[in-house]
Amino acid sequence: MSGMTIDAARATPAAGSPAPAPDPTGGDPAGSDPTRPTARDGFDRLFDPRSIAVVGASADPAKRGHQAIRALLAAGYPYPVYPVNPHADSILGLPVSGSVAGIGHPVDVALVATPARLVPDVVAECAAAGVAGAVVLASGFRESGAAGAELEARLRAVIDRTGIHVVGPNTSGMLNVGTGANLVGLPDVPAGPISVIAQSGNMLLSLAADNRELGGPGFDICVGLGNQAGVRYDECVSYLARREQTGAIAVHCEGLRDGRAFLVAVAEASRHRPVVLLRGGRSEIGQRAALSHTGSIAGSDRVATAVLRQAGVELVDRSDELAVVAGALATLPPMAAGTRVAVLSDGGGHAALAADALTMAGVEFAELSGDTLRRLRTVLGEGAALANPVDAAGATDTDPSLFADTVDALMSDPQVGLVLLVGLFGGYHLRFDPRLRDSENRTAGRLLELAGAHGIPLVVQSCYAADRPYNHAMLRDGGVRVLSSIDHAVRVVAALYRRGRRLHTADQRSTLALHHVPTRPTGRGQVLDEPAARRLVERGGIDVGPWRLVGSAGQAAAAVAGYGRQCALKVVSPQVVHKSDVGGVRLCVTADRAADEYRALVEEVSANVPAADITGVLVTPMAGTGTELLVGATVDPIYGPVVAFGGGGTLVEAVRDVTFRAAPLTHLEAREMLDETTVSRLLDGHRDVAAVNRDRLVELLVRVGDLVATTPGLRELDLNPVIAAGDTLHPVDVRVVVDTAAEGSGS
Amino acid sequence: MSGMTIDAARATPAAGSPAPAPDPTGGDPAGSDPTRPTARDGFDRLFDPRSIAVVGASADPAKRGHQAIRALLAAGYPYPVYPVNPHADSILGLPVSGSVAGIGHPVDVALVATPARLVPDVVAECAAAGVAGAVVLASGFRESGAAGAELEARLRAVIDRTGIHVVGPNTSGMLNVGTGANLVGLPDVPAGPISVIAQSGNMLLSLAADNRELGGPGFDICVGLGNQAGVRYDECVSYLARREQTGAIAVHCEGLRDGRAFLVAVAEASRHRPVVLLRGGRSEIGQRAALSHTGSIAGSDRVATAVLRQAGVELVDRSDELAVVAGALATLPPMAAGTRVAVLSDGGGHAALAADALTMAGVEFAELSGDTLRRLRTVLGEGAALANPVDAAGATDTDPSLFADTVDALMSDPQVGLVLLVGLFGGYHLRFDPRLRDSENRTAGRLLELAGAHGIPLVVQSCYAADRPYNHAMLRDGGVRVLSSIDHAVRVVAALYRRGRRLHTADQRSTLALHHVPTRPTGRGQVLDEPAARRLVERGGIDVGPWRLVGSAGQAAAAVAGYGRQCALKVVSPQVVHKSDVGGVRLCVTADRAADEYRALVEEVSANVPAADITGVLVTPMAGTGTELLVGATVDPIYGPVVAFGGGGTLVEAVRDVTFRAAPLTHLEAREMLDETTVSRLLDGHRDVAAVNRDRLVELLVRVGDLVATTPGLRELDLNPVIAAGDTLHPVDVRVVVDTAAEGSGS
Repeated sequence: MSGMTIDAARATPAAGSPAPAPDPTGGDPAGSDPTRPTARDGFDRLFDPRSIAVVGASADPAKRGHQAIRALLAAGYPYPVYPVNPHADSILGLPVSGSVAGIGHPVDVALVATPARLVPDVVAECAAAGVAGAVVLASGFRESGAAGAELEARLRAVIDRTGIHVVGPNTSGMLNVGTGANLVGLPDVPAGPISVIAQSGNMLLSLAADNRELGGPGFDICVGLGNQAGVRYDECVSYLARREQTGAIAVHCEGLRDGRAFLVAVAEASRHRPVVLLRGGRSEIGQRAALSHTGSIAGSDRVATAVLRQAGVELVDRSDELAVVAGALATLPPMAAGTRVAVLSDGGGHAALAADALTMAGVEFAELSGDTLRRLRTVLGEGAALANPVDAAGATDTDPSLFADTVDALMSDPQVGLVLLVGLFGGYHLRFDPRLRDSENRTAGRLLELAGAHGIPLVVQSCYAADRPYNHAMLRDGGVRVLSSIDHAVRVVAALYRRGRRLHTADQRSTLALHHVPTRPTGRGQVLDEPAARRLVERGGIDVGPWRLVGSAGQAAAAVAGYGRQCALKVVSPQVVHKSDVGGVRLCVTADRAADEYRALVEEVSANVPAADITGVLVTPMAGTGTELLVGATVDPIYGPVVAFGGGGTLVEAVRDVTFRAAPLTHLEAREMLDETTVSRLLDGHRDVAAVNRDRLVELLVRVGDLVATTPGLRELDLNPVIAAGDTLHPVDVRVVVDTAAEGSGS
Repeated sequence: MSGMTIDAARATPAAGSPAPAPDPTGGDPAGSDPTRPTARDGFDRLFDPRSIAVVGASADPAKRGHQAIRALLAAGYPYPVYPVNPHADSILGLPVSGSVAGIGHPVDVALVATPARLVPDVVAECAAAGVAGAVVLASGFRESGAAGAELEARLRAVIDRTGIHVVGPNTSGMLNVGTGANLVGLPDVPAGPISVIAQSGNMLLSLAADNRELGGPGFDICVGLGNQAGVRYDECVSYLARREQTGAIAVHCEGLRDGRAFLVAVAEASRHRPVVLLRGGRSEIGQRAALSHTGSIAGSDRVATAVLRQAGVELVDRSDELAVVAGALATLPPMAAGTRVAVLSDGGGHAALAADALTMAGVEFAELSGDTLRRLRTVLGEGAALANPVDAAGATDTDPSLFADTVDALMSDPQVGLVLLVGLFGGYHLRFDPRLRDSENRTAGRLLELAGAHGIPLVVQSCYAADRPYNHAMLRDGGVRVLSSIDHAVRVVAALYRRGRRLHTADQRSTLALHHVPTRPTGRGQVLDEPAARRLVERGGIDVGPWRLVGSAGQAAAAVAGYGRQCALKVVSPQVVHKSDVGGVRLCVTADRAADEYRALVEEVSANVPAADITGVLVTPMAGTGTELLVGATVDPIYGPVVAFGGGGTLVEAVRDVTFRAAPLTHLEAREMLDETTVSRLLDGHRDVAAVNRDRLVELLVRVGDLVATTPGLRELDLNPVIAAGDTLHPVDVRVVVDTAAEGSGS
């Protein structure tokens, strides 16, 4: 194992300035410095095309090959559009070419609107003609059965051979709102900072609808990846993270072609741009729907949740949250590290609901300083409740401008890093007195100034959001989010809160890069015998406690006497898997009984398993009292090597108290694993069990991560249970499974 | 303990027809038969007033006493309005009386818009003049400190003396939309079947805004209870449940004056009307906001969650769900018992998200019959995915009428009790072709017919909901909910699913009525010694296993020998609380050691606690191997007697794996408790522990519930741990706390 290999996977500790990005995709030479403008590479040409061919262009208005051209013209796409159809001369006033090769001008993107069976040849023709990217709409590929899978394999062969960037097949297309490169046929999508990578076209539609309903900030690039025969999620994330126009990346995903590449891309991208992700097909029945849709495989939901968060993704669990969270992260600054939230309301009811929801979301409330409280009292008078949440309690009813004075006081408090305003603001002139309209408009202007001057995000929830008063439009245009749902507002606050904390610790996080291709488990694998397993683990710098392999009753007695404690004896034999079932385990063996127990063990195993070739007997001291933990590692089929940690015993049986991290992981990440588990409540000691040294446990998890990340062929590693108390971490059993081909590495 | 007492608290088992309601409020004689029209009692006069006096009427348009009159006139309130003001002659064209007594006509409701300090006298004057109800707007009572609390006490004394129904103080008022009795000043509230009981006025505003944004069905009665000095939540629930115009009751609540009365009222009301509840002030910080608001006390969130569900409340955790769930329950029939959900989509992406969310919500999917699948194939063709969720996959793009054919096929399937349609329906003419508008309108009409003919609820989610197409208005007017959020749609489905199952089992549920007023814990209470505790528990028909109180070494030896097993010896002494700390517990005592251990125990305890008066030594056989459970009961300060059940040992320490039910509880309710806990996964056996006889455990919980419900002065009861294996439930320790005054009942 090489220390360098592992160090390279930690984020470079150059505090403050983001490290130069590694090239996670292997195919994108422009990814090296996100701040420097780059030459137009393949992805620039794909997502910001300066010329588009429509292959399968049609004169029939009901056909996609007609609608696409009409949509491009309607969107004011300013660059050349080349209809391609061997049987037409002119479509919508544009001259038609008989083939892509026949266009006679450089083409950035071909929209392929032909039937599925023609696609591989069309894409090959495009590649030959120097086209950078193709968007393939047709369905009838992998998602539709064996014949479709065969067709998709042919398409992938073309892609692999030529390097053309193919979006799809089975996609609704792609949209660059800024240039009007509308290949998805969605009308009236407003330009703005949200970029979207979606599995399905209807999700683009949903997000556009949600953005409209929310008064969201609009879109930059939208792409539906469909079957991902060519362009993958990780490539899109890496590209979008270096687009200046993209403020946040919203992802809807049912499955990934290369989960590890996605993690690596997001770990880098999320240092520059927020990445918000909604997963579809997480449940068994949901997977059925997703499977019939694009043939994706979602993998273990729990592993995915943990490792995606590790990579810096902001996960949303509700489909109605994707647009709202992405819109907020695209337009508002994250909360500064160490700061907390202040809530300002004009009624206790909404304040209580907001406080409940923020608490549930794990957001901390600022303790307002004495200075702040005095200022607030001056502004709001005696009736107001000043404990955070601040409840104006009617003080603003006749004078909404007090909101601005209050927000100024709150933003001046050193602990306040975000202000959430809940209640009726913006609707005072509707609720109380039309003459308050001007005051509300002026107040909105002042709120924008204050947010700008303090550099502090402001989030507004208002029961009047759906009325769309002018002062809300002012706030929205100034980058403040105004939402009608308290729950949406709180969801946004939680995202800004987490992002601030995350950016602050970015240098202490793993890049998640691997320097070998992890083995995707095939076949049953080979369980190493326990001495081999222990040696492999020890070579990774992991202390499994004292143990000895003995071959005689005398050696056994000497070993137990040497330890000076009661010991366990365990048979070592390739033919014996379930040792205790055949009498192959003796517990609490004292030195004076050791020789007898050794002989009895060998005799009983030989009687029960006559074919057993007994390599020896493993002697280890019995573990003391402690908290039962589970420490392990496995190679996830989607995300590669991952480390597992949780509670052992009844905790794992009843609660499934396990969390995961992609390996290699850092000390900070290991520490966060502990905090996520239920068993962490027991680590500070309980009943007669001493508090566990968390530093040691963190170090163990990091080393297990390093081992699984750097050992080709290592498939599973289980230290279960680990009995933990004080400084002692005692793995009772050590189990390792390797791929058959790599078995030698473990013995 | 009387068996009749307990039986009276179970629902009457007259299958099908609801039992005559008990009178839970004690003050509402009309509650006896919700189906029979009743004479106008006090609550009818309060909530449906035929005359209104405005006390504190004002000629100043900025004053509430002016706005209220204007609002009544604007809402077209058809009955007399009497302004009362000693210093004015005419307001808004109405003659003004100098006092309520001076009006000279019967008055149903007085809106009291005077300053707080005048309120007690004004309300007394109203009562004397025969006014049925008063709505008190002023703040400055209990929520504002000691002087306010004193004022509120004076108000309550008036209420107690006169029996007048007072809403408030510190409320925004009350609204009967149907008659225009608008005492809350909210304009443009549409009439419909949702009634609202809220803590705060702003919640009424939010709900009205949400209803408008959602295209919801509108409102019947809305009331803000404020400080609940008079009218309580339970009284409102009971009244609204017998109003024909009310289809569902939406409740926002920060605290209850009488939690048990609320449970009893809801347990009865929810058999006739859905009750949907949003709690505010659940978190510590949220309580701070709520406290400063109305001085309520929220109590334990976990107890509240469990017992409110037990009573039949549909709890919502998000404030943006209250209007949507109440609107759906008010207009859609519940799912028939035993049926499941079918999802129909026009794209796999939305189908997968809906399926995920439904799975998370615990909703079951129908297994479609072979007949249904054949019909679907005929309707949708080869491209569609027919496994539920059904994905039309483009078949409907050119012909939305196929939705109706598909829904007909689904609703004809015997297992389908609800159809959820997700995707683009209603927007096909916007997305694909304006000529589809007529087809969509016709399809909406057919969908309504189908839902009516099959008697099956239909819920529609559409990305075009915010566009408000005409066909959506058709569906909404026909009682189908059309929502833009998949999550909202799923939330609605989950509520209809639960309500159907609940109604089916209504006769197997407790009425939660108590026949004594439970002691609210005061002071420290008295811990009974263990023999007294065991006797009390045994009198409740609860087997605590064999035990004996012995007074000599010889008796101890005889007792252990008699049990024929290892035993535990425990000292019994009023001066010894922590027995094991002073040598007062001996475990695994064999018969031959029992006399010695007895003597050693007495000697050691006497040495450690010289003042100890040793009453005797308790001998019990040691428990065998089993699953550690926690069984207990306590008197909740809000909800009265409750039973607790959960996992013992590390489960309770690490996971806080406990659930609750209000006592007395039924066998069905006890069984549902088991299913809610994490430890239930271990009850079917694990490792070397036998499966637990669930029937016995259920019986134990029911008896514990009966005991705590019928024993005045019983404050706490703990059987912890109970070691459970097979048919054996072995309580290791039995602990009982009684109120000091009631101590005699336990000895």
